[in-house]
This record gives sequence, C-alpha cells and structure tokens, in this order.
Amino acid sequence: MSDERPIGVFDSGLGGLTVVRELMRLMPGETVVYLGDIARYPYGNRSDETIAVYGRQDARFLMRRNVKMLVVACNTVSSVALAPIQEQASDMPAIGVVQPGARAAVARTAEKKVGVIGTHATVRAGAYTNAIRQLDAQVRVYAKACPLFVPLVEEGMVDTEIARLVAQHYLYELVDTGIDCLVLGCTHYPLLMETIQATVGARIQVLDSAVWAAREAHEILADVGALSSRASGGLAESQFFVTDMPARFGEQASRLLGRELPRVQLAAFEELAA
Amino acid sequence: MSDERPIGVFDSGLGGLTVVRELMRLMPGETVVYLGDIARYPYGNRSDETIAVYGRQDARFLMRRNVKMLVVACNTVSSVALAPIQEQASDMPAIGVVQPGARAAVARTAEKKVGVIGTHATVRAGAYTNAIRQLDAQVRVYAKACPLFVPLVEEGMVDTEIARLVAQHYLYELVDTGIDCLVLGCTHYPLLMETIQATVGARIQVLDSAVWAAREAHEILADVGALSSRASGGLAESQFFVTDMPARFGEQASRLLGRELPRVQLAAFEELAA
Repeated sequence: MSDERPIGVFDSGLGGLTVVRELMRLMPGETVVYLGDIARYPYGNRSDETIAVYGRQDARFLMRRNVKMLVVACNTVSSVALAPIQEQASDMPAIGVVQPGARAAVARTAEKKVGVIGTHATVRAGAYTNAIRQLDAQVRVYAKACPLFVPLVEEGMVDTEIARLVAQHYLYELVDTGIDCLVLGCTHYPLLMETIQATVGARIQVLDSAVWAAREAHEILADVGALSSRASGGLAESQFFVTDMPARFGEQASRLLGRELPRVQLAAFEELAA
Repeated sequence: MSDERPIGVFDSGLGGLTVVRELMRLMPGETVVYLGDIARYPYGNRSDETIAVYGRQDARFLMRRNVKMLVVACNTVSSVALAPIQEQASDMPAIGVVQPGARAAVARTAEKKVGVIGTHATVRAGAYTNAIRQLDAQVRVYAKACPLFVPLVEEGMVDTEIARLVAQHYLYELVDTGIDCLVLGCTHYPLLMETIQATVGARIQVLDSAVWAAREAHEILADVGALSSRASGGLAESQFFVTDMPARFGEQASRLLGRELPRVQLAAFEELAA
C-alpha cells in the first residue's frame, strides 16, 4: 500500500524548513507542500487567539492542496493551537513538533531534569512542560525564552562573539539547574546548534525537535501504509508557498537547505483567509 | 482659529509612541488617535507592496475617526508608501518621519557626511538618502541596517554588554566614514540613545527623527490655524488602538511614555481591512 500525495508542512516563516530537511533525509521518496506565512511572521509574539486563527488558515490552505498528512512545523502553533487544527483535519493525521521533542527528552534524561528554550509564546504556553510531565510526572522542566536567537540566525550572525554572549546570557542559568537534556523548541535554533552546544557543554544533550517530528511523521505514514512508493521524490517535485517575498525566501531557503528550491510561489492572502 | 479634532498617528507597533511623546511635549493641548498594528508587526522585513497595503489600511482606519492630520510614525511606511497615503488623505495634511529627519541632518552636517540607521526595508528603500540628497546633492549618505536593535529594545536589554557589542558591530564602520550626524531612522532606536551616543562618540550628533517629525506637525498645524485651543488635552483624552494584545501594549507603552495610557482598545481586523 502506498500514497503518492504530498506531506503538508507549514510554519510562520523559514524555520520549518529544518523539519522539511529531516523529512527528506528519512523519506527521500516523499514530496511536500510547504507554506511559510512570511507576511504575518513572526507568530511568537502574538496572542493565543490570533495564533489559532492563523494556524487554522494555514492548515486549510494545505488541505486544499490534497496533502495526506499535516506537519505543524511551528513550535508556537504546535504549543497553542494543535488541537483545533487536528479537529479541522478530521481523519487526516496532523502532528506538531512539541510532542516528539518532549518524548525524546523524557527517553533521554537520566537526571530527570530537562531544559526547553523557545519563543515567548511557546514558553508562556507551557506546552513542552505539560507534554513532558504527562509522559513522566517526575521530570522537572526548566523553560526559558530566547527571543534574540531568531534575529541572530536571520542576520547570519550565528558564529560571532555576540551570538556566544547572547547564548551565555540565556543559557547559563539553565545549566546551573542541573539539566542533562536541552530541547530546541524553535525551528530556527538548530542553526545555532554549535554555539548552543559549546555554551552548555558536552554533558548536556541538545535535542532538535525538528528531527524527532520527522521521525514521528515517518512512523505514522509507515503504520498506516501511506508512504510513497517512489524511489526518490524530494525537493524537485515539492511545492513551496509563501505569503510575501518569494524571491528572498528562495535565497534564504537555499542557504538553509544547502540546495536550490525548485520554485517558490506567492500564496494569495485572499485564499489564505478564505 | 482652532481645530479640536485629534491628530492621527500610526505605526506597526509600539515605536511610534516616541513620536506621540514629542507631539505631547510640544503641543500639550492636542489629543491623538493612535493605531499600533501589532498583529502584523514588524513591517520592516516585508515587501514594499505589502507595506503599502498595510499603510493605506492603517491611514483609512484613522481617517474614519475624524482626525485633522496624519502622522506616519513608522519609518518603513514613510520610506516606501508615504505618497499613496498622502494621495488617499486628499487635502488633509499627512507627514512621515523621513523628511523631517533628513532636513534636520542637512541643516546640521558641517562635513556634509550623514549616517542613517534603520530596518532593512528603510535602508533598502533609500528614502533618507534620496530625501537628503534632494535637499543638498553635496551631502554623502552612509546607510546601515541594524535589525538587532529592535529586539534588544523589546527585551529591555538596552543597558547591557550585548547591546554595546551590537552597537559597535553596526556603528564602527559608520564612524570610520567620517560622518558628523547620525539619523535614527527607526522609532525604537531613541530608547538606545545613550548606548548609540556612547558608541559613536560626542563628535557625532545623533538626531531622533521622532523629535523632528513632531516639530513639523506643530508647524503645519500652526500655519493652517488648526491647533487645538485647549490648555491641556494630552494622553487622558487620547485613544489608543492596537490589532492584538491590548493589555501587553498598555504595559509596554506605560514603560515607554513614563505614564499610564488611559485606555487601549482592540481594533478589529475586519475594520482594518475594510
């Protein structure tokens, strides 16, 4: 049994491409339809109500494009609006990035102390904390918002003295709590992986939610017999939509993925809000 | 002759309140209707087309509230979309922050070398450069985008070692060009004034566009006999609208203005887009 339809992936911007990268690595025969809602980016500082409205609109846009599964590659939406999106998706599987990241942390922490970093909205929502403690009520979770990390990534300043100081500013107090796992609860943060790992030291495992979300997507599609039967599909057959500035997104995306994106199209606002 | 109607002021967020502060200081009898388009903030990384759509919607929202003048307290919109807003405003005066800042710089530079800092969109649009060179073609303009300044201000990290390093990162090459004036082309930057002034040294005059825009608004209203005749109006009689999170805006605004805002109301999206 196989299913040749694409996987739908959305994020408020570029960061969700780190999830696409992992999906392609695990399942080279799959294609994706990606939506980056650049025009309303970033979601991280918005109210929960607004984030839920945007998230449902993004999901509907992908569902109209005949996807077989939804991956909410945005920690903010995964944190505050996954349930209404799953309800809207009805019997189509829809996963976020929070549960997979939480499961990986619970499986790995020996000290039962986990750190989580993300945007203000992700931390405020407490979704990682709730997810981890539902899996193991013994685990203590230390969450910290790191809002300067995203602009540092977007400015290409990942390997600078400023990035190292900002990382120390945010992370030293987390290290002092005695955590042995740190979950990257924002899809931009994997691009700062080296700086973050160097700051917290080798004793702390840094876990990238994007990697674990891609693994969960793979398992679900395998379980329901909905993997593609193509030997290779990948980026060349995939579609990328953004709500603003397709050319600039294409450039940044190529840098992030290490290869050219086939075509980046503009998604009309009217359709998104429809 | 007098006109008791409010002055309409809009920005993509909070920064425009630095213009409101100056308007109130110069004209304590005036009231304002302020719109902060928080839900679609920040405008600085968007395409010119999108910025123009948003700017016209914001202006229309204020015009429906019977204002006597429009102040575009957003450098990004002033840079790329002032003309269509002035056209829409018809015979109501509408000013931005770019022209006043440019005039102040041209009047003050002895070396005829001016620096301008702002968002990517403001710098890309080259509006300050064009405005300054139209006033005096001899003046050389050095423009630099400083996108980390806004999150530093919003994180309350203005007086930190990180802020000083970021300022050095952005500003040392401007200092090396031999400028003697530096225009703050973003309404958030006045909150970093001390760090910026300390970084560039006392030889360089730092000019706040918000101050000069408020002066121009005062002159225009005086010229056409449309100043208010009230002895004091001010914040207590003013109205503040935001497109998301009014409570959080109220808190941040009080911190910025040094006094409580009377009431912050939610502006419905439907009306904004109408």
